[in-house]
Amino acid sequence: MNHKLILKALGLVLLCEAAAMVPSLFLTLYYGEKDWLAFLVSIVFTSLVGGLMALSGSGGGNVGYREGFAVASFGWILLAGFGSLPFMLSGVLPNPVDAYFETMSGFTTTGASVISDVEALSRGILFWRSLTHWLGGMGILVLTVALIPSLKIAGLQMFKAEVPGPTKSKVLPRIAQTSRELYKVYVIITVLEIVLLKLAGMNWFDSFIHTFGTVATGGFSDRNASVAAYNSPLIEGIIIFFMILCGINFALHYFSVRGNFRPLWKDPEARLYISIIAVATLLISFDLILHSSFSGARAFRESLFQVSAIITTTGFATADFDQWPWFSKAVLFILMLVGGCAGSTGGAIKVSRMLIMYKGISRQITKMLHPQAVIPIRIGRGIVPNEVLDNVQTFFFIYILILGGSTLMITSLGVDLVSAVSAVAATLGNVGPGFGAVGPMTNYAALPLAAKALLSLCMLVGRLEIYTVLVIFSTRFWRG
Amino acid sequence: MNHKLILKALGLVLLCEAAAMVPSLFLTLYYGEKDWLAFLVSIVFTSLVGGLMALSGSGGGNVGYREGFAVASFGWILLAGFGSLPFMLSGVLPNPVDAYFETMSGFTTTGASVISDVEALSRGILFWRSLTHWLGGMGILVLTVALIPSLKIAGLQMFKAEVPGPTKSKVLPRIAQTSRELYKVYVIITVLEIVLLKLAGMNWFDSFIHTFGTVATGGFSDRNASVAAYNSPLIEGIIIFFMILCGINFALHYFSVRGNFRPLWKDPEARLYISIIAVATLLISFDLILHSSFSGARAFRESLFQVSAIITTTGFATADFDQWPWFSKAVLFILMLVGGCAGSTGGAIKVSRMLIMYKGISRQITKMLHPQAVIPIRIGRGIVPNEVLDNVQTFFFIYILILGGSTLMITSLGVDLVSAVSAVAATLGNVGPGFGAVGPMTNYAALPLAAKALLSLCMLVGRLEIYTVLVIFSTRFWRG
Repeated sequence: MNHKLILKALGLVLLCEAAAMVPSLFLTLYYGEKDWLAFLVSIVFTSLVGGLMALSGSGGGNVGYREGFAVASFGWILLAGFGSLPFMLSGVLPNPVDAYFETMSGFTTTGASVISDVEALSRGILFWRSLTHWLGGMGILVLTVALIPSLKIAGLQMFKAEVPGPTKSKVLPRIAQTSRELYKVYVIITVLEIVLLKLAGMNWFDSFIHTFGTVATGGFSDRNASVAAYNSPLIEGIIIFFMILCGINFALHYFSVRGNFRPLWKDPEARLYISIIAVATLLISFDLILHSSFSGARAFRESLFQVSAIITTTGFATADFDQWPWFSKAVLFILMLVGGCAGSTGGAIKVSRMLIMYKGISRQITKMLHPQAVIPIRIGRGIVPNEVLDNVQTFFFIYILILGGSTLMITSLGVDLVSAVSAVAATLGNVGPGFGAVGPMTNYAALPLAAKALLSLCMLVGRLEIYTVLVIFSTRFWRG
Repeated sequence: MNHKLILKALGLVLLCEAAAMVPSLFLTLYYGEKDWLAFLVSIVFTSLVGGLMALSGSGGGNVGYREGFAVASFGWILLAGFGSLPFMLSGVLPNPVDAYFETMSGFTTTGASVISDVEALSRGILFWRSLTHWLGGMGILVLTVALIPSLKIAGLQMFKAEVPGPTKSKVLPRIAQTSRELYKVYVIITVLEIVLLKLAGMNWFDSFIHTFGTVATGGFSDRNASVAAYNSPLIEGIIIFFMILCGINFALHYFSVRGNFRPLWKDPEARLYISIIAVATLLISFDLILHSSFSGARAFRESLFQVSAIITTTGFATADFDQWPWFSKAVLFILMLVGGCAGSTGGAIKVSRMLIMYKGISRQITKMLHPQAVIPIRIGRGIVPNEVLDNVQTFFFIYILILGGSTLMITSLGVDLVSAVSAVAATLGNVGPGFGAVGPMTNYAALPLAAKALLSLCMLVGRLEIYTVLVIFSTRFWRG
């Protein structure tokens, strides 16, 4: 293993993180908030450690798969570690486990919180908290690598690790180019939403915060009541639109911003994703009309917002969906597992994986009648290789194993089954809120520390799509 | 499609079923019970229909996969239909949905019941109810086919359909031979348990009933308190031993009864299965000791019984495990999904499928580091072909899909999530009792009729391991 290269890469990542904290420092100084010292110390300390690591490392030598996976896994672990400094030093979250949970939740775009009163936080802290979403959404490592040419050779593995989905669509031949172009699209969408939210009546600060939460499909808000605080159909509509948009493969948006809407229109995954949103919204609307006193309009509005927030794994809330009938909750739980499209900022299993596995079923049935037939799996115009199917099916199995195993551990701490399983599904899928003890109107603060630590790991495992983290735990990885 | 052959085969299956009702008729006559008329009418009607079908059909012509699947699926549907006649005609379960649920639960060895007071039933009804377990355990169609040489050509598909697990181990080259030998082993084990239970203090009738429930891993009892009614460690011990035994591949027992214990001892699936039982028993014992006033001995005894009853998918109860702590319930729920070994009478996903998929994970991790490597999956001394892995992984995905979809439908009828998901897991896995509204101290009687109908289908789908039933629903099956 090329330790020097890993050291240098991780050092550069920390330097980038320190730079990313600077706007929050300025905000605290501008608004005269006492948290400026916390940011100053965090920036100095993170730069010092990052600088020392970068200097003692080196960009040369052999680079293979191992190095890419090591940088990706340890990079994210370090990012959340140093990123939690402002929370600790400011006294917002004195317990390191809480601070680490909140920061990991930010970077992984989960949006699960242990802070009960966010309106009491300083602007600096609020901005940093939401900026972690934005940085984590597109993959901060890929950004770092794209900026630093000497590291580009390790870029492919990091790109593979950070960009979700079974197949990684490079829109351009080089990874560094691809990630720079995708980041441009990300910035365009971000600016657009900030402006629209401002026009819809939000102040600039709030529109930044909610845009970061939306485009990264994160879910942190600076209001205790989340998006419900505005009670504005226009704001909800804008957020719904951008949540759904950012749950779609950014490679498709790359073509769209160039005026070519055909790839987006023809994409089988995006079509299925939109259909799932439509069906789920209708099902929940009917359930709410039947089992509550809601008007049709209110049921539809709350249903569409919540379905979009959950399937895109954003996790904003405009309603206490934990109080909804069991059927609606079951639909939402399934959406928590399904998640967004590959190559989007959304988490969980991904629509394309479900689609590939679904095609696998129909092939098995045909094989029962024609055991000798060789049947390729087609999606759109492409053929899915058997290795990809195997990868996807194994991913699904591990996902369910982790869901079951982590739920088991959380219940062993005395948490009830529905709260436990939804907490794991909501963190592993980078959604945010779950049901019961971790429902949308409460948060993760009351969970035992061990549960918070485990769920932090679930967020990381979910964000890096399991394999990258799992490979680090394998003996084969360390042997040589 | 060779309709004549299907007609003949189904007719013969019904004739066998009519014959299987005769002992119950004798019992009612012997004990002077009024249900004799219900059995007489059922026998006459079933024989008439079966005889007419067999006569208008024919054993000749082409036989392919389609015919095998059709006989298997429709055979089981008809068996449960005609088998429910005694329940309806005797007035025990006047509603056909209830009667069908109970009979399907019997044949599929689920053991879920809609009868609240079984001690009020006649001996004839009780015997028929438990005999369906015994007939369904080893696969009644295979038995029929083994007895009727003209049908043996369709035997392979039926054997495939009825014998659970990803790989079908034929201990002898011919299917008819194999199933006859496996039935012999089944009979030997059955006789052994009947005698042992009698020696342990049960009366003859009860030992028949509980033996049928055990060796088929069914779970019907003739006592309202199930096995707890005896409060005898010896009886519990015998039942635990035979439940665990019958959750193991009967092909291994075939060698064991010939004095060759090596295959059983060396079998990777059986080893993993025993290990899971040991670990789960210890985990639940500790949980019960920590979170209840149980003594260590009581905790271990209840834990071992319940773990064995659930993983083997028998579903007997000696404790109200619905009152156990959440961690213990979560362990039991996972065992409901895992199930017994391939080629056993146990249901659910099967240990060997879990083992194969687990090996698949380790291969994926190796592939991340060595993407070009071709790595075979080994289990014991054998190599698992990629097609089997694909089949198993697809099976797992469909299983989870059906679990999720059916749970959704049950919650739409107003049932809470834990009751709904455990009811589906317990019927799809042919276990029997679940949690909450369908816990071990209650039953399925109070569920809405639509839920009972859906759960009856789940039992069938689970017993025939999904594909056989699914293929019948495919357009491709009917087209060509």
